[in-house]
Amino acid sequence: MVVRERLAELYGAGVVSTTGLIAHGRGEAFDYLLGERTTSDALLAEKVAIAYLLDAKNPVISVNGNVAALCPEEVIALSRAVPAKIEVNLFHRTGGRMEKVIHHMEAAGAKSVLGRNPDARLEGIASDRALCSKEGIYSADVVLVPLEDGDRAEALARAGKIVLAIDLNPLSRTSETATVTMVDEVTRALPNMIGFVKVLREDRAERRRLISSFDNRTSLRKMVQTMRDHIQSD
Amino acid sequence: MVVRERLAELYGAGVVSTTGLIAHGRGEAFDYLLGERTTSDALLAEKVAIAYLLDAKNPVISVNGNVAALCPEEVIALSRAVPAKIEVNLFHRTGGRMEKVIHHMEAAGAKSVLGRNPDARLEGIASDRALCSKEGIYSADVVLVPLEDGDRAEALARAGKIVLAIDLNPLSRTSETATVTMVDEVTRALPNMIGFVKVLREDRAERRRLISSFDNRTSLRKMVQTMRDHIQSD
Repeated sequence: MVVRERLAELYGAGVVSTTGLIAHGRGEAFDYLLGERTTSDALLAEKVAIAYLLDAKNPVISVNGNVAALCPEEVIALSRAVPAKIEVNLFHRTGGRMEKVIHHMEAAGAKSVLGRNPDARLEGIASDRALCSKEGIYSADVVLVPLEDGDRAEALARAGKIVLAIDLNPLSRTSETATVTMVDEVTRALPNMIGFVKVLREDRAERRRLISSFDNRTSLRKMVQTMRDHIQSD
Repeated sequence: MVVRERLAELYGAGVVSTTGLIAHGRGEAFDYLLGERTTSDALLAEKVAIAYLLDAKNPVISVNGNVAALCPEEVIALSRAVPAKIEVNLFHRTGGRMEKVIHHMEAAGAKSVLGRNPDARLEGIASDRALCSKEGIYSADVVLVPLEDGDRAEALARAGKIVLAIDLNPLSRTSETATVTMVDEVTRALPNMIGFVKVLREDRAERRRLISSFDNRTSLRKMVQTMRDHIQSD
């Protein structure tokens, strides 16, 4: 309920879009089917995602309106811990909203947020949504996309990037496209991920093991099974 | 997508609330699990609901912001076909929004919409949400609540009314509380219901049979099973 009020407030401030509010509702329904908790499978995916981020040459966290509204501090903390760059990318991009979202991240303490002046384009998606920054997402080898739409997730994967997605719908195109899908609520996932940075930073062997043993399809299948088991009629 | 644009537009006009947008998203997720179609079990529930409406002494259709935004014409058509009164009831009630929603219904062709001057209260729910009209919901024997929240659904049931709910979440409190729950999207459910008015108007025996043979718990269990079956990993 507090989360919803926060979204409503930041909708009023122009950070969150209408689509963002509806998407949040969809997430709520899937989270409900999940039992509103981080499952052990999601936790493992979060650990694997951190292994990828720590091994990356140019890791970037892609932030949209909902992410900026829901957990700016956690995004900043993760970006410092890894470290990784932060780039704002909006599904509904207008100059004004872009500035509002970036400003919101800066007000929360982010030092340098990319996205203001996009100077590159991703292949294969329409118009504005292809825009990104050369030193950020365009040249990134690993991109964390909390709450990303399917088209952009696919474009990132086609561009050869490791895509780490946080998505409550295990059947979404984003979930299926990602290298690692964390089927979890973003405000639960990010703190878990931050915790794993310390654990994995000095343990290259464990990072290797996690990455080589993780299969996203299998992981998603388990999440679907968890939701199926959780839907009960009695 | 067209539906979302309509909601966004009417959000801008003050008809739809923030909570309404998020609730719509939750519905989308459940509809996705349903296969975005009217199942045969939902269709039966819609037929039973019409049997109740036709047998009622004072049937009322309760309309909130989302219903007014999504399908004002269908609500009006159903209210004429039965006939049933229309009363606007908002979860987030302010004088201004109330007037906007009622005006929206009137602009769509509704002749007399109740709710402007509530002169009665339902027992057992807090503050504004208890308000209703004496000649409408307060004295109704059968109330159709498309997209109702759990608290009000329970209050209506406690007041001894037959509650007919349209709710995409078969596990919600509203779904469990209702006498008949139509687990279907409201813009699909209402046209189906309108179709059943003709079929059942002259057939009192069939109405009796439908009402006496329908069990909401069994119906909901089937809907849950349909969703479980529809969640597949391959």
